[in-house]
Amino acid sequence: MGQFFKISAPPRIVGYAAVVGPKEAQGPLADEFDIIFPDDTMGQKTFEKAEGQMFLAAMRRALEKAGLLAEDISFMIGGDLLNQTVSADFTARDIGIPFLGIYGACSNMAESMILASMLLSGGYGQRALCVTGSHFSTAERQYRFPLEHGNQRTPTAQWTVTASGCTVLERKDGAKGPRVESVTIGRVVDMNIKDANNMGAAMAPAAADTILDHYRKGSLPPDYYDMVFTGDLGSLGQQLCSTLLKENGLSIDSRYGDCGSIIFQGLKNVGCGGSGCGCSASVFNSYILNGLKKGKWRRVLLVATGALFSPLTSQQGESIPCIAHAVGVEA
Amino acid sequence: MGQFFKISAPPRIVGYAAVVGPKEAQGPLADEFDIIFPDDTMGQKTFEKAEGQMFLAAMRRALEKAGLLAEDISFMIGGDLLNQTVSADFTARDIGIPFLGIYGACSNMAESMILASMLLSGGYGQRALCVTGSHFSTAERQYRFPLEHGNQRTPTAQWTVTASGCTVLERKDGAKGPRVESVTIGRVVDMNIKDANNMGAAMAPAAADTILDHYRKGSLPPDYYDMVFTGDLGSLGQQLCSTLLKENGLSIDSRYGDCGSIIFQGLKNVGCGGSGCGCSASVFNSYILNGLKKGKWRRVLLVATGALFSPLTSQQGESIPCIAHAVGVEA
Repeated sequence: MGQFFKISAPPRIVGYAAVVGPKEAQGPLADEFDIIFPDDTMGQKTFEKAEGQMFLAAMRRALEKAGLLAEDISFMIGGDLLNQTVSADFTARDIGIPFLGIYGACSNMAESMILASMLLSGGYGQRALCVTGSHFSTAERQYRFPLEHGNQRTPTAQWTVTASGCTVLERKDGAKGPRVESVTIGRVVDMNIKDANNMGAAMAPAAADTILDHYRKGSLPPDYYDMVFTGDLGSLGQQLCSTLLKENGLSIDSRYGDCGSIIFQGLKNVGCGGSGCGCSASVFNSYILNGLKKGKWRRVLLVATGALFSPLTSQQGESIPCIAHAVGVEA
Repeated sequence: MGQFFKISAPPRIVGYAAVVGPKEAQGPLADEFDIIFPDDTMGQKTFEKAEGQMFLAAMRRALEKAGLLAEDISFMIGGDLLNQTVSADFTARDIGIPFLGIYGACSNMAESMILASMLLSGGYGQRALCVTGSHFSTAERQYRFPLEHGNQRTPTAQWTVTASGCTVLERKDGAKGPRVESVTIGRVVDMNIKDANNMGAAMAPAAADTILDHYRKGSLPPDYYDMVFTGDLGSLGQQLCSTLLKENGLSIDSRYGDCGSIIFQGLKNVGCGGSGCGCSASVFNSYILNGLKKGKWRRVLLVATGALFSPLTSQQGESIPCIAHAVGVEA
């Protein structure tokens, strides 16, 4: 079972930013993003450096929107999909903030906010920065095939989002912004799916597990959240998650969306939708937080999902262990 | 600058265990370890599965020594050196405890204890499990050369420790064991060293930076800790760190040791000493905690160090960003 916690002294989201590549700007959320890079090299020599460039841009814009400098931040929490999480590592060096590295695959956005909220509310530090992201071209060549291969994709495959998102949290009387009110730390769920091109199906049971735990342990009615957003299940995974929730007595279809389904809605050749750490990170730090700000919703649950496998474990015949972490944000 | 925190309600270390491979048992700490595997496959088909086997053995033994079951643990925090931290991921699945994955390279033992101590003292959960480890053969083939290559090693190279360590923390009135009293979250330090076979030199400045911050921000006299242990600087890195500390006015040579220098002391063909997440994890969860228990020391500072690079960033000409996290443990 997941571990639900009510946050005793809820920190506020005082700054946030989402930066994306050109493909993401073709989707329905173009007007929500803070920065759109016109080409996916971000002016860098390698795609890995391009990914780091997005991290820095997201962090700097989020700090700017919060009216803060890097030295105002007590610590940053970040991670990414690359081996040894080098995008977070190198940008932590560049920005110079004390750094706690995490790895939760595409659940990073929620994991970093869970940790930051609990640490701040416990009295450790005044402000924390949470950052993650992904890049189609770094993920594709690390997890799947060389880009030059131009490989055909299966119908259940998803398209890694090229984006980074950053959230700045603050605990201080008088701080303004949505509050992180409750969290659920997920447990690892593995339904023995081995197809690395069907992440939605692999991750859906973990998402359902965490959502059910969050509602049950928080004693929340089904309509407590105006919207529940899973991170990157895609269209197939979203259907599976919805089915699993209903089978366990929780019907929230009318108030359930998936960041991976939303970000590429209407686009062709993206399979079941978006994936990658940048998927929930960019949708949360634009569309979702903008929606809370505008009063479209009052309470939102972000359930970022991660597939905790590696190309090597797949080669060794292992299944795909998955996790989902939930963050309840209230305006 | 690193971020120093005094832990407001210090949790206690109620259980700990170190498990190692056969080479580690040839060193001076053989009698300190809980489990010594007679061969480095741990009865598994691949070295990656062998690494996971050590994680499970360390977790189970630490729980057993604490008189606890997995379901008594609120959450576990763990990571490792493998791409996508699969040893921690898969064993989190197998043991079924809500899971927060981290990546701080060889600083994992300290990073996990920092997080667990702050979360528990903030009122989140009763007990946390911290785990990490490494395996010579998984690290060698991922970071350096195929094992079959039998590659020559440079004099500054270190030998990845085959081991896992686990610490169980509890906050409860009446709990017994050493307390985590203070921590410093490190910042990333990069002195532009690019030689992946000279990790000690790359990481020493980060270690010195964090140690200096911990003493200064904690307003601690040089003799506050009976011993300061860096994680895996090895003999060369330890000398460099000591020099940097002295240049900055802190002389602690008589009370300064390095886990990487200690674990393989007297052994041949290990270069400058041990490295890997399992190095500080196994030395801390045996020799150091046993020493506190026996009254050999009253206060100890563990400063685990991590090199936050990847083979890919080295190939792309990048230097090696490093980090060190400090945990002050008092009997």
